[in-house]
Parts: sequence; structure tokens; C-alpha cells
Amino acid sequence: MTGVSRQVVLHERPTGAPALSNFRLETVELPPPAENQVQVRNLWMSVDPYMRRRLYDDPGYTTSFVIGQPLEGAAVGRVTATNDPGYPIGTLVLSGLGWREAFNAPVSALNRLKIGDLPPEVFLAEAGTTGLAAYIGLVRIAGIKTKETIFISAAAGAVGLVACQIALAQGCTVIGSAGGLEKCEYLTSIGVHRVIDYHAARSLSAALREAAGSGIDVYFDNVGGEHLQAALDVANTFARFVLCGMISQGSGRIAASSPPPTNLLLAITKRIRLQGFIVGDYLSETDTFAAEMSSWIKSGRVKPKATTKIGLESAPAALLDLFRGANLGKMLVRLT
Amino acid sequence: MTGVSRQVVLHERPTGAPALSNFRLETVELPPPAENQVQVRNLWMSVDPYMRRRLYDDPGYTTSFVIGQPLEGAAVGRVTATNDPGYPIGTLVLSGLGWREAFNAPVSALNRLKIGDLPPEVFLAEAGTTGLAAYIGLVRIAGIKTKETIFISAAAGAVGLVACQIALAQGCTVIGSAGGLEKCEYLTSIGVHRVIDYHAARSLSAALREAAGSGIDVYFDNVGGEHLQAALDVANTFARFVLCGMISQGSGRIAASSPPPTNLLLAITKRIRLQGFIVGDYLSETDTFAAEMSSWIKSGRVKPKATTKIGLESAPAALLDLFRGANLGKMLVRLT
Repeated sequence: MTGVSRQVVLHERPTGAPALSNFRLETVELPPPAENQVQVRNLWMSVDPYMRRRLYDDPGYTTSFVIGQPLEGAAVGRVTATNDPGYPIGTLVLSGLGWREAFNAPVSALNRLKIGDLPPEVFLAEAGTTGLAAYIGLVRIAGIKTKETIFISAAAGAVGLVACQIALAQGCTVIGSAGGLEKCEYLTSIGVHRVIDYHAARSLSAALREAAGSGIDVYFDNVGGEHLQAALDVANTFARFVLCGMISQGSGRIAASSPPPTNLLLAITKRIRLQGFIVGDYLSETDTFAAEMSSWIKSGRVKPKATTKIGLESAPAALLDLFRGANLGKMLVRLT
Repeated sequence: MTGVSRQVVLHERPTGAPALSNFRLETVELPPPAENQVQVRNLWMSVDPYMRRRLYDDPGYTTSFVIGQPLEGAAVGRVTATNDPGYPIGTLVLSGLGWREAFNAPVSALNRLKIGDLPPEVFLAEAGTTGLAAYIGLVRIAGIKTKETIFISAAAGAVGLVACQIALAQGCTVIGSAGGLEKCEYLTSIGVHRVIDYHAARSLSAALREAAGSGIDVYFDNVGGEHLQAALDVANTFARFVLCGMISQGSGRIAASSPPPTNLLLAITKRIRLQGFIVGDYLSETDTFAAEMSSWIKSGRVKPKATTKIGLESAPAALLDLFRGANLGKMLVRLT
């Protein structure tokens, strides 16, 4: 199976915010798979917020993408040629080799997917690390309990939307914030109790106070900045804050778009616990979680939702769109 | 035993920072104790950072001092007249009725002190809630372990000094920050491994990075602001931050003197847990702790250290001095 594959390469590091000119689309020859390798054609790839950091030098807890090399990220694909009898042609696999249409790899770089009746792209989203992040944050880090009030920022984003549905299924009162009418209406449609459109809210603290009534017990933070400030203002004593993402605080060389909270003193007077986590620390739980989430999706407890771009050539724009919050649910790129 | 007692009354709430003019010294008549009451003459009283909040309206987790009424706070005294056979004359007691020379109260408002060989004022400091705060923060909230690196800000303050000694006794590497040469030299003299004079440090992050070598595992925060920023910069992954006080962030109507940290994103990438606590939630452990701390003091593991003012009339100035960081160790007022 000699052929070609297109791939997105890091052309240069961004000097300010990431731009399309930082990426380059290349066509490379794809030889037959070597001994002990299989050839995979990707069906879907994921774009994720953490990729922003990897565009820059010194990305912190992860490694930088390499200039001139294809980017990396989660993808699901199908085996199209094989030298491993355990992975026959047609096998569905999850890999970290997104940003390319096809590749050869040893099976040690692949994770066999058991999708059941579900579409495979769900394993890049709700049943993948996105959903796992929501689950770990709410259940393991915050320890949400029935009847608690949970505030989730960027609630219509990939992680936020799963978090809303897990909290709702747990019998919590859920307050979600999102930017714009479409996202807010979607949140309402899936049963989120109170929705704050932060594009429209004059004071986020005032809006959250009104939405929360007696205060929030848990804050699932995907945003930082002004949202964190409002959550501190409205938190109940002994509230737990899960720090999952801080879009507003930028990353790499990007300046923050929202000032840092000035009311951290409330963490003392209200005895608040704030805890950051990285889903990468929990990847050993991926398979167990995927099986559980599959049953939640089948039962309708969690509804998959993605914003989809078509074709590898649209992947850089999909990533930039993600940083602008253009997605409702998970941002995915369909490669076939 | 009819007599008089002097007391410090809240004359008016501060409009900006607290000032001496907010307080008034009054002399009141002290009738004999009523049935089931005892009369106590205070020996020592404590001034504490939390009292600042109580000068204002809306102090948060505590209640405001009342205008025209005597202030309150921890004090040790001796029973000088009694209608309760369980509290004979001479009994040493701890109460929340500081800021006055003498008072009548039911024994339910008193805690009998077992001082052993120790001076009674130690039970307002190292063996009181000050020491308890250090202990709870390090042991219960942070869970310090032998050989970890612990950074303690305001390390020469009342809580900080006890925290340093508990961490040293636990076999930790201790880094303390303090303002000025005298405090720094004292910290060195009790065995603190590295001392940062934050009056002299150009960049607190750079100074902390140099002091910490491979990074800090625990930050005991008495300050907030720039110190918290530096601690986030230099923290190891999975570091635990104990938020005990944020002097730099002011309180009540006081503006912050140090800007809030702009690098909270590091709490995610480094998986840091920040937890606020109030020693008032742990008062049921006071007696057990006092007994344990007494043995630590007798064995020399913890050395008592206080800055002492003499006479009730100096108590308001002692409180204001505390807010300026004028104290080395616990700030106390001797009333006899």
C-alpha cells in the first residue's frame, strides 16, 4: 500500500497569538508498513486547548511541537494495511498521531477502540480524554454530591458540556456560563438550570449571585480571570474549585485577556480549596471511563455534541476557532 | 471586690486604614461577680491580624466589633473573686475577653489553663491558636513530609515562626521570608535553612528560585500577592499551598498593597492544591494541641518568641504595629 498522506506541519512558532501562517500543509510519501507496523488512515482528529501551549517554546508540563514536523494530537483511524495479525485491516484505533491523513506505526502506539454502537469520533470527545477531564474534575477532584450547586464556566465548550451533564445526572443544580445566545440556548435545552451569557452580563459576580441563590458549592473552572473572581465572590464556605483550564489567562507568550482575581483572600475566609489538575495524569483510566461513558451516552444521560470541520486542510483554522470559543461542544476535524 | 477596670472601646470604624483615633480607653466600674460568676484580672492579651477585619462592617467569616463596646480577643488572666467553687481565687484562665483589665463572667466563658512550668502568655501564642494555626496548616492541610522543601512567608511573624519550627522538627528544608535584617537573623538563629529578606530582594521569584534549588513542595502563605506569585513560579508539581493569611491583600476597606498573582495558570500545569483555612474551625483541638506544644517547648523544639507592649493603653498601638509587621514573633500586651 504505497501512497501519499497529507500532514499539517509547524511552519514557525507564533510570535504573538497563533495564526494560520504558523502552519503548513505537506504531502508526504507513505511507504508500506514495516515489519511489526500497521498502516492507519485517520477518520477524525481532535483539536484541543492544550495544543496552544505546544506551539511555543517552553510550554510547561508538555513538550513543544517541533518546527518542520507534523503536529500531534488524538485521532481515530482504521487499519488499512497490516503486518500484525492482532490488528487486521478494518481495526479501529485511537492514537496520538492526528494532524495527518495516514501513517505507519507499531501497534504499541495504538489503542484498539471498542466503539459498540457509538460513532467513533465520540472517543475523541465525550468518551475520550475530554469527557475524562470533566469526570475526574467533578467526581475525583471536587467530589460533587447530590443537591449541591455547581458552577461551570465555558459550559458549552468540550469539557464544560460533559461536566454539565455529569453534574445534572448526579442530581446537582447546575449553573453554566457561555458566550452568546446559541450556546446558552443549547445549555438550557440539555437541562442546565441557570445559564449566564457572559457576553451579555454587565457584572459576572452579580449575574452569578442571582443565578446561585444561596451560593455555589463547586466551581469547575475552564476560564480563570473574571470568572474565577465571580466564583470566589459567590462561593459557599468549604467550596471546592477545580482548575481545569484558564483560557482567559492565555498561555505561552499570550497575554491574559481577563485580569487575575483580586479577591483570593476569600479563599481563606470561606475555606475554599482550589485544585489544578491535568487529565494526562489519569490516562490509565481511559478504557474504564470510555466503557462507562458509552453506557451513559446510550442511556441518553450524556448527549454527544461536536462542532465539525471537514478535511485536514481545515485543521489549523479549527484550532484557531477553538481559541476564539467558536465551538459548541467538542471541536473535531473529519478527515474522510 | 468592687473596683474599676480600664477597657479599650471601638470609638468609630476606620474610614481607611485603622488609626489610633478609632479607639478609646474607658474606665468602668467593676461590681462584685454575680452568682455563678467569677472575677478575672487579665495578665496578658493578644492582638491578632484577624482583628483588623472586625474593625469594619461586613468582616466576612467573623463578626464586627461594636462601636462603643470593648473590643474582644484572647487573654489569660487570674481569678480574683469567685462564686464558683470549681474556680478558686488564683485559677489561671483563658478567655475571649481581652482588651480590658478585669471582668466578671460565668465560667462557661472561661477555659481553665494548665500551664505546667510554662509562662502563661505562651498559651496566647505558641501553645494557643497561633501555634494551632501553624500546626493545622502544615500537618493537617498541607500534610508536610520529612525532607520536603517548605516555603513560609512572614516567617518571623507569630504563626510563621511556629510554622518554621514545626517544619524544622519534622525534618523539612525550610525557607522563610521576612522583612528586615533583625527578623532574618532571628530566623537563621533558630535553624531556618534559607532566609529571604523581601525588603532587600529585587525579584522575589528569583530569590525564591535560588533559595529553593529544586523547587518547593509546600507553601505556607501568610501574605498573598507577590509572595504567592513567587511560590507559584517556584512550586514543584503537586505542591500544596496553605492559605493562612494574606496581609498584602488587606481586608475590610483596605486596598491591596501587592498586586494579585498573574500566574494562577501554573496551578493547573503544576497540579497545585491551594487551600484556605481558619483556625477557628479547629478550636476543639486547642487543649490537645496545647499539651503537645507544651512538651515541644520544654524539649526546646519550639522556642517561644514575642514582642511585648506594656499596659492596656498600649494595646491599640500594638495592633497597628502588627499591621505594619513591627513584631518579631507573637505580638502581646502585658496588662500587669
